[in-house]
Amino acid sequence: MPEPRTTIEWHDDHVELIDQTLLPERLEYLAVRDVPTMIDAIQRLAVRGAPAIGVAGGFGVVLAERIHGSGTPEFTQAVSDLRHARPTAVNLAKMVDRVSAVPAERMLAEAEAIRAEELAASVDMGERGADLVLDLVGNRPVRAMTICNTGGLATVARGTALAVIQTLHERGMLAEAIALETRPLLQGARLTAWELGRMGAPHRLVVDSAAPFLLSRRVADVVLIGADRVAANGDTANKVGSFSLSLGARHAGVPFVVVAPESTVDMSTVGGADIEIEDRGAAEVCGFRDTRFAPPGTDAINPAFDVTPVGLITALVTEARTVRFDRGDRL
Amino acid sequence: MPEPRTTIEWHDDHVELIDQTLLPERLEYLAVRDVPTMIDAIQRLAVRGAPAIGVAGGFGVVLAERIHGSGTPEFTQAVSDLRHARPTAVNLAKMVDRVSAVPAERMLAEAEAIRAEELAASVDMGERGADLVLDLVGNRPVRAMTICNTGGLATVARGTALAVIQTLHERGMLAEAIALETRPLLQGARLTAWELGRMGAPHRLVVDSAAPFLLSRRVADVVLIGADRVAANGDTANKVGSFSLSLGARHAGVPFVVVAPESTVDMSTVGGADIEIEDRGAAEVCGFRDTRFAPPGTDAINPAFDVTPVGLITALVTEARTVRFDRGDRL
Repeated sequence: MPEPRTTIEWHDDHVELIDQTLLPERLEYLAVRDVPTMIDAIQRLAVRGAPAIGVAGGFGVVLAERIHGSGTPEFTQAVSDLRHARPTAVNLAKMVDRVSAVPAERMLAEAEAIRAEELAASVDMGERGADLVLDLVGNRPVRAMTICNTGGLATVARGTALAVIQTLHERGMLAEAIALETRPLLQGARLTAWELGRMGAPHRLVVDSAAPFLLSRRVADVVLIGADRVAANGDTANKVGSFSLSLGARHAGVPFVVVAPESTVDMSTVGGADIEIEDRGAAEVCGFRDTRFAPPGTDAINPAFDVTPVGLITALVTEARTVRFDRGDRL
Repeated sequence: MPEPRTTIEWHDDHVELIDQTLLPERLEYLAVRDVPTMIDAIQRLAVRGAPAIGVAGGFGVVLAERIHGSGTPEFTQAVSDLRHARPTAVNLAKMVDRVSAVPAERMLAEAEAIRAEELAASVDMGERGADLVLDLVGNRPVRAMTICNTGGLATVARGTALAVIQTLHERGMLAEAIALETRPLLQGARLTAWELGRMGAPHRLVVDSAAPFLLSRRVADVVLIGADRVAANGDTANKVGSFSLSLGARHAGVPFVVVAPESTVDMSTVGGADIEIEDRGAAEVCGFRDTRFAPPGTDAINPAFDVTPVGLITALVTEARTVRFDRGDRL
């Protein structure tokens, strides 16, 4: 495999993004030239992760403007469709709104600015998060548990929670990363294991339901997760399984830290009960790719995200601040 | 598919058991004529579930006696290998010991007695458990959540926790069963969904890590699990994910009930810390059947079971008693 470019980039007149559905088998780039293709890429998770789909949304508005001209009914419709492609991560709607709000000739610069901000935020979250973790754990090599994929693939590069793990590794302070496989779409097994392998970081995989038990047996020193939306009170929507992990961390007395850029904080959402949770249907649960697990016709409940109440969160780390909920800090 | 026979039966000179690795695609019977084949069937989970492998162990001793004669070094070795085929479920060792302890000519009758006792126990656990659930939930149709497979396939027929669900269904008091898929081997998606479908019970599947969140959203009224070993203090080893589910049930204020025959209660094990937890290796986590999820060479931690401390368990239901841990009852 060649060295990958970053997860999402503007090239001349179109977007190029890593098609994450093909990893870890193949590293391929998808050229996105119109909004329906971008919506499809977002919905089938070719591009995923709250910051990355925020950047994708920004570039999507640029594509809509180039095809339809801004202010036309077709532009308005395309932007609205894009904005609602997935409901839970606030970044998508926020960045679509942000790029739509500037004059047509400045849209590409605004979308590129969003991408540059996310890139810089990942570096800063990594540093700030690593400092916090070493403070919480004591200044020694850390065993860090994480869910889903919060690496470069979920952002532009480096990531959120996984950026903290990468920074710890670069400082020589990562003993081991323990990645949850993250059913149903296995972003942990497919994407996080791939990224940890590429960075040369020691890691092991676990099934999601084993993680709270392994925490009770002190297999990890800290839990680090990303976020799709942080509400004004600190309640955090993230990949389904995060709540379960927060219960396990609390039971074991292990710090539970959310790492997310300011773009994921949504002060207009009061609390977790106000966050719409996407249900992605039964097919993802009943099998994986071409393999079916369940008998034909089996129905499922498939929430893609869950909500961890702020009372179970030790701290939120963004590129700009460390919010210690455990010490009574507020957003 | 023909109507299945029970999960495990003695036929003339050999054991016949449902090969559970082939379900739900195919219902096939495996003829077991010697101890190595029985050990292999137990280790690759062709027969699984604490009560079922107890019965398998009993019949395995009969096979060893017929091949080697009792009291020979070969018999002693075969029985020892069988006894240690899997470490966590106490039933296997218990039933191997029980059949080994009787004279050769009474071994088959003893093994058949174990099978008959488990069959009767399932009926009684179903009735007793349904009574308890209706008492806990209030006398109304119940939404019951369960993990792994605790049905007829895990016993001889009807099961443990799933026997309670079947009894509720037969009484017209089951609103819905919610089955956890149960990674890595997907016994919930493959086996429990198949059994619930055959009994005509309404059911939906969820990924394991969604269950605690769905409990917090009041999707179920009660959690029912089986057990591989209940220690003297009530701590319960069961399929990995049970502990996480118990944390979710406690957080949501939902009763968490263990259903297991007396044969699974092990008064010689003081508490959960004394229970050996089988690690089944990385391959099961890194894929499923022929599908690989993780990059080649990825390592994993794969505890097949976990331990739920008695403080998180509302009650234990056996064929003989209902132990209300929430009211201070002791074993």
